Amino acid sequence: MASQPETEHPNKAFGWAARDPSGLLSPFNFSRRATGEQDVTFKVMYCGICHSDLHMLKNEWGNTTFPIVPGHEVAGVVTEVGSKVQNFKVGDKVGVGVMVASCKSCESCAGNLENFCPQMVLTYSAKNKDGTITYGGYSDSMVIDEAFAIRIPDNLSLDVAAPLLCAGITVYSPLRYFGLDKPGLHVGVVGLGGLGHVAVKFAKAFGCKVTVISTSPNKKKEAIESLGADSFLVSRDQDQMKGAVYLIGVFILALLKTNGKLVMVGLPEKPLELPIFSLTTGRKSIAGSSIGGIKETQEMIDFAAKHNVKPDIEVIAMDYVNTAMERLVKADVKYRFVIDVGNTLKSTS
Amino acid sequence: MASQPETEHPNKAFGWAARDPSGLLSPFNFSRRATGEQDVTFKVMYCGICHSDLHMLKNEWGNTTFPIVPGHEVAGVVTEVGSKVQNFKVGDKVGVGVMVASCKSCESCAGNLENFCPQMVLTYSAKNKDGTITYGGYSDSMVIDEAFAIRIPDNLSLDVAAPLLCAGITVYSPLRYFGLDKPGLHVGVVGLGGLGHVAVKFAKAFGCKVTVISTSPNKKKEAIESLGADSFLVSRDQDQMKGAVYLIGVFILALLKTNGKLVMVGLPEKPLELPIFSLTTGRKSIAGSSIGGIKETQEMIDFAAKHNVKPDIEVIAMDYVNTAMERLVKADVKYRFVIDVGNTLKSTS
Repeated sequence: MASQPETEHPNKAFGWAARDPSGLLSPFNFSRRATGEQDVTFKVMYCGICHSDLHMLKNEWGNTTFPIVPGHEVAGVVTEVGSKVQNFKVGDKVGVGVMVASCKSCESCAGNLENFCPQMVLTYSAKNKDGTITYGGYSDSMVIDEAFAIRIPDNLSLDVAAPLLCAGITVYSPLRYFGLDKPGLHVGVVGLGGLGHVAVKFAKAFGCKVTVISTSPNKKKEAIESLGADSFLVSRDQDQMKGAVYLIGVFILALLKTNGKLVMVGLPEKPLELPIFSLTTGRKSIAGSSIGGIKETQEMIDFAAKHNVKPDIEVIAMDYVNTAMERLVKADVKYRFVIDVGNTLKSTS
Repeated sequence: MASQPETEHPNKAFGWAARDPSGLLSPFNFSRRATGEQDVTFKVMYCGICHSDLHMLKNEWGNTTFPIVPGHEVAGVVTEVGSKVQNFKVGDKVGVGVMVASCKSCESCAGNLENFCPQMVLTYSAKNKDGTITYGGYSDSMVIDEAFAIRIPDNLSLDVAAPLLCAGITVYSPLRYFGLDKPGLHVGVVGLGGLGHVAVKFAKAFGCKVTVISTSPNKKKEAIESLGADSFLVSRDQDQMKGAVYLIGVFILALLKTNGKLVMVGLPEKPLELPIFSLTTGRKSIAGSSIGGIKETQEMIDFAAKHNVKPDIEVIAMDYVNTAMERLVKADVKYRFVIDVGNTLKSTS
């Protein structure tokens, strides 16, 4: 007999879940494991809404387990630590991003790339080693292995810190790895959403010259005046561009200098379709990147705190979440919704 | 009035040309310019047959100017030099590859990447600055700017040197640029043809571990025993793989380690079609590369001479060329046809 979410673990928990691919979120009673020796338990204060949450809620990638409690940009305050926990104590500011476990022994884990570990466990709607399902940060508390806990610097408030744990590392890591972090280098950021606007801020903090490439001419003012971009480019034809990764790819590749790199961090539903000559002419690359390892996530958030890189957020109440999802579909947010879980999640039990 | 190939330049020349997209080659009288101040004139001794020659003969890329004299893997002996030529004298062994001119002033040219100069002039079927058409190495003589002449080392015979000038630099350059030239590194070579077999030899000369990936199980013996590859992998399903770059791409990307790179050097007719997750998972890259600059071509051929990297060739007579093209379509060659122009091209005039 399959275990029930509400009773499978000893500690009561409460959050909002979707029960089916309608994606509609509503109050949900479940449970969390007891704090293990190496675990950090924390009260969730804020949780960012990532576009992945929306894809997962509607089962658009086909791998959702219902009920699903989303949320992988989670920031809170430690309430209990296990006996072997070394780096956290009760009262510390803590965060968790996209993953909560990995094998800790493979080549990727050894190289601080837990994000590429074949046994990596996602923060929600994934299977724990014990067979239970992971539930994310749209909830009152979380229990996580210390190895996946990120220390949030004192001078960074929890609401602003939350989106850095997915959006932040997703753009920071490739900027670093692909060498797009050198002063004077010219970096293009395609699309000014949750990821893009943080990419502009990090690239500026690295000293790069930044051009925003967007389908919306009306984003020019905010890109340059609010976010600090150096220039703005409207991609050719909105209707054309929206339809096909193909066109976007060819367009962007044509903009690249010799030896230029196009790094994909989003996951468009359509495959990439490109004539090879757009790569061979000018020795260009298309690369992918997916979040980052835990060590680099800590480095990223420390860098953000030091250089004042802060996502632009709209803080919402828990019961606004379904409306927020509708607005997210229309890209009607500047630039990240963050749920004030700590103050607005009310238990119905 | 358009100038005629036979009379537009002062010096008589003779070669084989195709007159139309049938691609059938036959004897052709044309002319070459007089040796300019910075020109090197040479008698063509050998010319490799590149698969591009076949594409161009049949106008498969849509940019062929007829009549076309193909040949961009040309090796010969200097017969005359201009008054300002510094590095060549009569009797020297010389070669020319894919290009014969560039602007010499752009960023690419300044960076020794003439291959990416927007004004680069291809060795055949392209327009010279004076408006005349370039004719390649399936001919008795060539006149080229010294800046595009490659010195062929004394210990490298001209027949073996010829294919290095396109096939050689096409694989050498990306192995170097993308850092696939480190002892112990594991390099995969997809396809064992004119390019692939030279790639295996260069990668082995760099000290890499080399796996050949091929659709033909019967190439295993030769890959390992003759070419020195360390291992051999048959790509899944021949019929499937032949049809679609998509499948080859996904298959190869799946083989790559984290941070692995797939470098495309050929020009398949179909576009690349890939789900983005095959790049994001493991931070993989697809890059393109196209031949290499003149400085690197010289470096490549000097390296080949020093480390005994020699293409496997089948030397043919000029009047066998149409049969050779038919065999090339069926990949029936190990691994490069080289025309013995010097001994077998007979003028009909």
